[in-house]
Amino acid sequence: MKGWFVTFEGPDGSGKSTQIQLLREYLTAEGQEILFTREPGGNPVSEKIRGLILDRENEDIQPLTEALLYAASRAQIVAQVIRPALEEGKIVICDRYVDSSIAYQGYGRELGDVVEQINEAAVDGIMPDLTFLLMVDPETGRSRVCRGGEMDRLEAECLDYHYKVYEGYQALAKRYPERIVLLDGTRPVEEIHRDIIGKVREHFGL
Amino acid sequence: MKGWFVTFEGPDGSGKSTQIQLLREYLTAEGQEILFTREPGGNPVSEKIRGLILDRENEDIQPLTEALLYAASRAQIVAQVIRPALEEGKIVICDRYVDSSIAYQGYGRELGDVVEQINEAAVDGIMPDLTFLLMVDPETGRSRVCRGGEMDRLEAECLDYHYKVYEGYQALAKRYPERIVLLDGTRPVEEIHRDIIGKVREHFGL
Repeated sequence: MKGWFVTFEGPDGSGKSTQIQLLREYLTAEGQEILFTREPGGNPVSEKIRGLILDRENEDIQPLTEALLYAASRAQIVAQVIRPALEEGKIVICDRYVDSSIAYQGYGRELGDVVEQINEAAVDGIMPDLTFLLMVDPETGRSRVCRGGEMDRLEAECLDYHYKVYEGYQALAKRYPERIVLLDGTRPVEEIHRDIIGKVREHFGL
Repeated sequence: MKGWFVTFEGPDGSGKSTQIQLLREYLTAEGQEILFTREPGGNPVSEKIRGLILDRENEDIQPLTEALLYAASRAQIVAQVIRPALEEGKIVICDRYVDSSIAYQGYGRELGDVVEQINEAAVDGIMPDLTFLLMVDPETGRSRVCRGGEMDRLEAECLDYHYKVYEGYQALAKRYPERIVLLDGTRPVEEIHRDIIGKVREHFGL
């Protein structure tokens, strides 16, 4: 692959969106060609799959079915958006990817290793070169999200679930220290941004 | 599991439906409690997933996305129909299961081992105790299907594809000789039926 693949991960309220925006602005100013995406990313097939997952009519969807549907949506984006952009030499920045599925479904919903197995199949070898994991403890994350207005179904799940997600992310950071850069999301925005730029420059020799 | 799980496999036109019907009648007459299913099997979530796959509007669905969607539909049926029936001690007879995905998608569409990986995750340990694989060569299968009226999208695919599916089934029969009973589908219906009954009695000690 000619391009680079960067993902952002972290619990809700960890400041991902802010940092993604700052990194995009920085790289654009540097003259880099960037593709930003997040799932389902406007892909019609992925949108329909997500619609099916989120439709309250389908409340008896089994956890494993849900994990496979998310992976199907991801496989579509990888094949139609991410892989072509990387082949064209672009920098692809993605808001959440496989690590989110492992943290939220593998750990949060306690589906275990099967989530990794499914996603390994779905991404067909396309894994991030670099992942920024912004961490805030579950209570801080929750209070930040609440200030933002109404919570969606996942955000409204009990705090216990968010603790499991948190543990999942911690476990991933330990397992993939070469790829995952763990950042304390409670530090000042500009400071985190400087760390991210430093890592990006170091990793890709910008 | 208290129950037994029997699947029927084979290319289109191999005579599966006829043999399933005969086995159901035989086991019912023997006083056995049977659950017959085929995917999506009337399960609303699975029906919707299948609807998404077959909708011509979604013609850019990627092969891997399709494989994951079929697996999601299967995971739902396993959790909601097959596993509960087996736990209740029923004989579950299923028209096509994991072997179909491996033959049609892994071999036919050349997706390879990833189809097995995805399905292993989807079925959550629920594999057939016994599988009857009815084989007819691709030309015979095609001509039988054509006599039955109009062909659907998959049936209309070129013969080359059906040869790959055929090869896939042969490979599966070799790989799982303990589970898969290979039967020549060109033999007389009654003769095949007698073989199936013999194997069922032998395997389950009926």
